[in-house]
Amino acid sequence: MRDKKHRKREGCFLAEGLRILAEAEENGHLPEQIFYAESGERHTIARRLIAATEATGGEAIRTTEAILAKLSGKDNPQAVTGVYREFETGLDRIDRSTAPIWLVAQALRDPGNLGTMLRTGDAVGAGGLILIDDCTDPFSVEAVRASMGALFTQKIATAPWQDFIAWMRSASGQLVGTSLDSDLDYQQPDYAAPCFVLVGNESAGLPADYAGACDLLVKMPMMGKADSLNAAISAAVMAYEVLNQFRR
Amino acid sequence: MRDKKHRKREGCFLAEGLRILAEAEENGHLPEQIFYAESGERHTIARRLIAATEATGGEAIRTTEAILAKLSGKDNPQAVTGVYREFETGLDRIDRSTAPIWLVAQALRDPGNLGTMLRTGDAVGAGGLILIDDCTDPFSVEAVRASMGALFTQKIATAPWQDFIAWMRSASGQLVGTSLDSDLDYQQPDYAAPCFVLVGNESAGLPADYAGACDLLVKMPMMGKADSLNAAISAAVMAYEVLNQFRR
Repeated sequence: MRDKKHRKREGCFLAEGLRILAEAEENGHLPEQIFYAESGERHTIARRLIAATEATGGEAIRTTEAILAKLSGKDNPQAVTGVYREFETGLDRIDRSTAPIWLVAQALRDPGNLGTMLRTGDAVGAGGLILIDDCTDPFSVEAVRASMGALFTQKIATAPWQDFIAWMRSASGQLVGTSLDSDLDYQQPDYAAPCFVLVGNESAGLPADYAGACDLLVKMPMMGKADSLNAAISAAVMAYEVLNQFRR
Repeated sequence: MRDKKHRKREGCFLAEGLRILAEAEENGHLPEQIFYAESGERHTIARRLIAATEATGGEAIRTTEAILAKLSGKDNPQAVTGVYREFETGLDRIDRSTAPIWLVAQALRDPGNLGTMLRTGDAVGAGGLILIDDCTDPFSVEAVRASMGALFTQKIATAPWQDFIAWMRSASGQLVGTSLDSDLDYQQPDYAAPCFVLVGNESAGLPADYAGACDLLVKMPMMGKADSLNAAISAAVMAYEVLNQFRR
């Protein structure tokens, strides 16, 4: 399950820790299997998760701390680990009218950035994250961990650019890209819901034709010697600006 | 050098890639040793870095791609890798009058978060990053990599809380903490330079007495089910708000 090939073959993924499994449960997701050791049994929440998993036909497996550690690849394993069925990630899962903000990432390579974008999306009240072109797997252990449970609260879609832009233009919505080549300060425009905040690949940024297809291309001020921000940071600074305008 | 024990014994650290080494050079830092392979020799910038390193008494070591890969722990190594002398990290390195914003992190555990905070600090025109209590090593390969060169443009200081707060109060400056327990929206206060933006540990947040010692304790709006942001994201959203006020 920690290996992408096996994960995809089984159509399952791993999530670890009471906090994330409880978040999943609150959002209607129970694991197909839940692993726990002695330390897990002592937690009220763990016992509730175990009972709920069994009540829905899932399997609760009592194991040792050592095996839990092996499952998670960490020395100090979480009290529980769940195996979940992967979600569908078609664009048709996205109903843009359900949220004022959506995050979009293109060719995002870092699972920590992906998970962090999910977590930020949850915080700003975004509806979900749309992954364009060849992004890192949202169901990897690292992405799930960085999402801190937001994998279960945010919708996730994956699509090639052509499909995304056709879908984007099939209804109303503002596509806002971030680009170092833009002269438009990100605090200048009036954002409009549903607003799609698009960030590009960590190294290359957005391809020129993708940038050209945006309704707005904006730039955060860069006061120092660096010329760019981390992709998840860009998305967050942008998303909070959009949220701040909407809540005024 | 990839191991903390060895790094500390030698007082040196590794930085990889033309972009970061060039950023270092622009800020007056040349490596004590520079490693490069055939692919590196073809780059004008690499040749300039090699010559500059030798001109200042450093050592330029031609090696193989395989050994470069081993040095960096990555399959696709960068064209050059430099070994740098660690900087002093006393609080006395910080002259608060030199910048309007300073970032402060307490018990930060994740090297990616630390490096990202340096990179964000550079972008917002911060003067540097002050690391309180037991933070992850700013000179680790992961932190240096995530900083994208900002390790060389930002001042770095490390201090126990008691020393920091005494230093903080020895001159003027506004200490702004982020806390989930605050009712004060982060866009409400008027920030004043030099403004010190303080974020707490990834899991535990700020200790109550540290939070109590802040001039302001603010909170970003949380619209979703999650109750917190990634620490580097919090710092960035806060820092851009402070910058936006200052540039108005």
